[in-house]
Amino acid sequence: MLLQNQVTVGVIGMGRIGRLHIEHLNRHPQVILKAVADLRAEDIGEWASQQRIGVVTQDAMDVIRDPEIDAVLICSSTDSHVELIAAAAEAGKHIFCEKPVSLDFRSTYRALQAVQASGVKFQIGFNRRFDPNFRRVKEIVAAGEIGEPQIIKITSRDPNPPSYDYVKVSGGMFMDMAIHDFDMARYLAGSEVTEVYVKAAVLVDPVIGELGDVDTAVMTLQFENGALGVIDNSRQAAYGYDQRVEVFGSKGQVNVQNDFPNSAELSTRNGVYKDTPKHFFMERYETAYRLEMESFIDAVLRGGDVLIGGEDGYKAELLAACAAKSWKEKRPVKVSEISVPAPT
Amino acid sequence: MLLQNQVTVGVIGMGRIGRLHIEHLNRHPQVILKAVADLRAEDIGEWASQQRIGVVTQDAMDVIRDPEIDAVLICSSTDSHVELIAAAAEAGKHIFCEKPVSLDFRSTYRALQAVQASGVKFQIGFNRRFDPNFRRVKEIVAAGEIGEPQIIKITSRDPNPPSYDYVKVSGGMFMDMAIHDFDMARYLAGSEVTEVYVKAAVLVDPVIGELGDVDTAVMTLQFENGALGVIDNSRQAAYGYDQRVEVFGSKGQVNVQNDFPNSAELSTRNGVYKDTPKHFFMERYETAYRLEMESFIDAVLRGGDVLIGGEDGYKAELLAACAAKSWKEKRPVKVSEISVPAPT
Amino acid sequence: MLLQNQVTVGVIGMGRIGRLHIEHLNRHPQVILKAVADLRAEDIGEWASQQRIGVVTQDAMDVIRDPEIDAVLICSSTDSHVELIAAAAEAGKHIFCEKPVSLDFRSTYRALQAVQASGVKFQIGFNRRFDPNFRRVKEIVAAGEIGEPQIIKITSRDPNPPSYDYVKVSGGMFMDMAIHDFDMARYLAGSEVTEVYVKAAVLVDPVIGELGDVDTAVMTLQFENGALGVIDNSRQAAYGYDQRVEVFGSKGQVNVQNDFPNSAELSTRNGVYKDTPKHFFMERYETAYRLEMESFIDAVLRGGDVLIGGEDGYKAELLAACAAKSWKEKRPVKVSEISVPAPT
Amino acid sequence: MLLQNQVTVGVIGMGRIGRLHIEHLNRHPQVILKAVADLRAEDIGEWASQQRIGVVTQDAMDVIRDPEIDAVLICSSTDSHVELIAAAAEAGKHIFCEKPVSLDFRSTYRALQAVQASGVKFQIGFNRRFDPNFRRVKEIVAAGEIGEPQIIKITSRDPNPPSYDYVKVSGGMFMDMAIHDFDMARYLAGSEVTEVYVKAAVLVDPVIGELGDVDTAVMTLQFENGALGVIDNSRQAAYGYDQRVEVFGSKGQVNVQNDFPNSAELSTRNGVYKDTPKHFFMERYETAYRLEMESFIDAVLRGGDVLIGGEDGYKAELLAACAAKSWKEKRPVKVSEISVPAPT
Repeated sequence: MLLQNQVTVGVIGMGRIGRLHIEHLNRHPQVILKAVADLRAEDIGEWASQQRIGVVTQDAMDVIRDPEIDAVLICSSTDSHVELIAAAAEAGKHIFCEKPVSLDFRSTYRALQAVQASGVKFQIGFNRRFDPNFRRVKEIVAAGEIGEPQIIKITSRDPNPPSYDYVKVSGGMFMDMAIHDFDMARYLAGSEVTEVYVKAAVLVDPVIGELGDVDTAVMTLQFENGALGVIDNSRQAAYGYDQRVEVFGSKGQVNVQNDFPNSAELSTRNGVYKDTPKHFFMERYETAYRLEMESFIDAVLRGGDVLIGGEDGYKAELLAACAAKSWKEKRPVKVSEISVPAPT
Repeated sequence: MLLQNQVTVGVIGMGRIGRLHIEHLNRHPQVILKAVADLRAEDIGEWASQQRIGVVTQDAMDVIRDPEIDAVLICSSTDSHVELIAAAAEAGKHIFCEKPVSLDFRSTYRALQAVQASGVKFQIGFNRRFDPNFRRVKEIVAAGEIGEPQIIKITSRDPNPPSYDYVKVSGGMFMDMAIHDFDMARYLAGSEVTEVYVKAAVLVDPVIGELGDVDTAVMTLQFENGALGVIDNSRQAAYGYDQRVEVFGSKGQVNVQNDFPNSAELSTRNGVYKDTPKHFFMERYETAYRLEMESFIDAVLRGGDVLIGGEDGYKAELLAACAAKSWKEKRPVKVSEISVPAPT
Repeated sequence: MLLQNQVTVGVIGMGRIGRLHIEHLNRHPQVILKAVADLRAEDIGEWASQQRIGVVTQDAMDVIRDPEIDAVLICSSTDSHVELIAAAAEAGKHIFCEKPVSLDFRSTYRALQAVQASGVKFQIGFNRRFDPNFRRVKEIVAAGEIGEPQIIKITSRDPNPPSYDYVKVSGGMFMDMAIHDFDMARYLAGSEVTEVYVKAAVLVDPVIGELGDVDTAVMTLQFENGALGVIDNSRQAAYGYDQRVEVFGSKGQVNVQNDFPNSAELSTRNGVYKDTPKHFFMERYETAYRLEMESFIDAVLRGGDVLIGGEDGYKAELLAACAAKSWKEKRPVKVSEISVPAPT
Repeated sequence: MLLQNQVTVGVIGMGRIGRLHIEHLNRHPQVILKAVADLRAEDIGEWASQQRIGVVTQDAMDVIRDPEIDAVLICSSTDSHVELIAAAAEAGKHIFCEKPVSLDFRSTYRALQAVQASGVKFQIGFNRRFDPNFRRVKEIVAAGEIGEPQIIKITSRDPNPPSYDYVKVSGGMFMDMAIHDFDMARYLAGSEVTEVYVKAAVLVDPVIGELGDVDTAVMTLQFENGALGVIDNSRQAAYGYDQRVEVFGSKGQVNVQNDFPNSAELSTRNGVYKDTPKHFFMERYETAYRLEMESFIDAVLRGGDVLIGGEDGYKAELLAACAAKSWKEKRPVKVSEISVPAPT
């Protein structure tokens, strides 16, 4: 017996993040996961069959063209996103796309115009907005409990730098890693960023510098509503994944700390110990990834707006571009220096 | 295509806890959930079909007699456990049974003898042993990091008292609620309890007293290894589910605090606020319930011992009986006053 | 120029605690510290002259008989208290006396009758009531913020056991150490204790047991208002001085944790580390000792009641005696079994 | 009897901070506080006599010229500092001077040259270096426990803005308030700042803006050793004095949180509540102020170096000047753009 109100889904790209989404989709009572596409289809056949997925293909267009499929998840490498978005939009499929849409905000802009023309839903994988900690901060700020936001602080540090191969194609730390923080800054401030100043350095691994990238940064933001912001990033925090925010306002302050695997606290004559924070993004944001997928499926089933649209992806990419420019030119850069009209 | 190494499962009792287990079983790649039994089978047909369960029956024996079924979960009311265990053991089914096995430790003893004779696996639903917090405490204690345990403290308070109807059939607060804490005490101490002294009261709701039960208690334990223990219970903590432990030893102390839904901390001129702890046991022990079911399935599939066996259920019931006796007789009660030989 | 509203003070006993009080007295703008008495007067002459104290004597009566002296602090060994109290009361001196008044609550009772007859002020050195943490708990409880108290929990553990010589004359752990906790229990509950049950053990050092004392205990209390209490004590906490309380009531719970020398938290790949709590009682209760002396001086200067009177000392001693009896007789002991009329 | 090894002290300026130092001096066994000078000498006579200070004068030169006085504390208004330092140095008095030395780093430079020529000790009142929290961070960083520092973060927010009259003469938020943070940054990094970028705003009170000052800032620092820093300042934190630091390095991270008046945590159905942090700088830094004075007296008595010398005051003023320049010119400013040779 088939259920009413189901959505049939295909997933393109079966890397780490694609598989994570598949696990959540497979547990969703209203989702039929019909097909997956990956260039290494033969390698993933066994895993896919364990997940009870009928169709496994090398060609993403097999998924996009399948008339039974209502929605596609684009989890393939960044350079493939724009073309796949255009094809999926044309085929009338709702789209969930991992960040960034592309490494060039102009391409992203054009892709989003295609989405807009087609009328399909389009959600960006800014998973952190679904994290219970950050969400609660947003609620508290939005409820006016801290008054007018004045200073927004984001700490975002990875446990380990990515591979050199990944660094080369990542678009750089600003586009690959800080993009989440730019989105979080806009989300928490409830206001657009108008200027970015970046101080960055290569303090973790000189090879990252040789590849033209940085691994450490402190970034100052000016928001439209007058608030100031600061993001600090590192590619390597010895103690694990470090993800904290603080919003300070006219009536108070709210902050969230890292998540820990347990609350055990051991006191001995040598001191008081706790385990390190959750180490890996998939563990840290387990709940957030589940909620983001439920939110997308819900938007498709009930027809409402997605919570994080194409414009959010575009604007975060714009800020990453400003950051890169600020770093290269060693000066504050106004967003108006580089932005093109937003896709409304 | 069917997978190798699968286990086919039936569930008896579709109340709150039965449904929770079913959700976890349904997500387990090596489980085929074939059948469920509940006296109100007609009421749960729709839910069961959403869960893609083929067989829904009123008669638990339909599940137990099904030759394809390898293991049964007994989640029905406590008064049905002993008979179902005996039948399932005789039918050669592995058994997961919710706590307590029965309200009379002598009946439990006989049921466990039947299990032992049959050689099937038998796991008790002491979910808290799988909680990441308590588990980490156990690891730290077992690794000798606090030296010899000297004082074990357990706080266990419910957010709200159960219904009067439930109080009547629950076996009383010691058997229904403190039984988890008796098990936790044995688990953390790594030693048996030899004496119990209970000071209890009716402070939450006088009707609970009229029904012959208590709602508040402080219990002192003597362990075989010399350590002392204390459990404090309340049927109603205004701020939510309160579940903490502390083990103090010759070299140090380890404790765990409550779990919170988020880490947001709001500072205003009126003070610093956090949200209340996770309020409900299903939310608080979500991970523990998943891990306990994985552990049972794993024991069935791989043939190892279950982590929490019948003896653990029996011994906790014995302590609940001592507690009730201590409360009634207003004196310390030695476990040896009432225990029958353990089923080894 | 002499100030108005001054009080002239003498101190009897120049051990650790006597010297501590002297430092606070010397900083008080309205105190003239005129004389100190100690059996080893010659040893302390230099220290006393550094403190600018004019009179140093071996004979406590020199202090008590000095007509210029308004108030005396009795900080000598416990066995001298009763006689000194009687003499000081007769001489019309206000009295601050360290705990316990005596090792026999009947003697204490008689001493307090002498005090009462004389009309002098009499304050007991239960310093912890002045600790900002415990005081805040009391305020919150008294303001009704947790509703009716139901469970009071006190953890009180010393960093190290005292010397064997001290153990011999201390009156035992219940009279020497737990007496503070009995006072705290009465203070926080706002109600008298009616019954005590003690489970105690020798887990720290067998010699303490050979001396007839214990070093570890869990004690259950019944309060007149229906609340239950539990105190856990140890003579040796590897990580320092462990002093925490929790009061649980119908509307909520309040607790305080240990004080730390700093709030530094170090995260490395091995875990998250803090320093151990303040290790020693003089460091932990530095503020409390200052405030208790200010409170006494204030009562003398302004003529109001002391905050902790003789009855508080007497009642705590009574509970210590009940505890010792419960431990010896292995049963709950009602306070009414041993108490004599309170000196009202 | 006079003690050996004493130092005779005079204090110039009896405002809030002068009085605070006097209380600590008066409790120091090796200090004779002989004289105080204040323009409003008649107003403070009573207070001074309570403090048992013999000489009260309107003329600071009475203190400086007194041949018995070994050391002077300069706690008068900033505009008087340079002249008093020169006079005291010439008179051979050791000097403790409140921050800043002057509002113009060039004047400060000249004053420090006079000090150097005279050979007297000179300590700057950067009290926070003596705070047990920040000191512990410094120790941990200096011990290499976080590896090489990479990101230094300082949050420093006042509970309330100063009066408009004070704002007018304060030298601006960078010189008056952030100067402490510039010193802390240098102290924790163990490296000099080479560049400052400031983003500042008037978000608290528009009148502050009309007076030519700012009340909110985020400042990025570049250190010589490659590390990056960020300071965020506000003139008004609704919840009290907010003083936190974090140092992130190649092997880990250390941070300190605010100090609280007590550790009481109240849980009710509405949430978990703590009191606000210590509200006022004199309360927050009570221990630090005592330790800084002890350290100065110790340097005078024992002849060692002061822990915070004139160069530290000068360099912090230089950074404040860079900050003001960066804010006005809306660009990063290198310290080398404005600095004059350091007084070595």
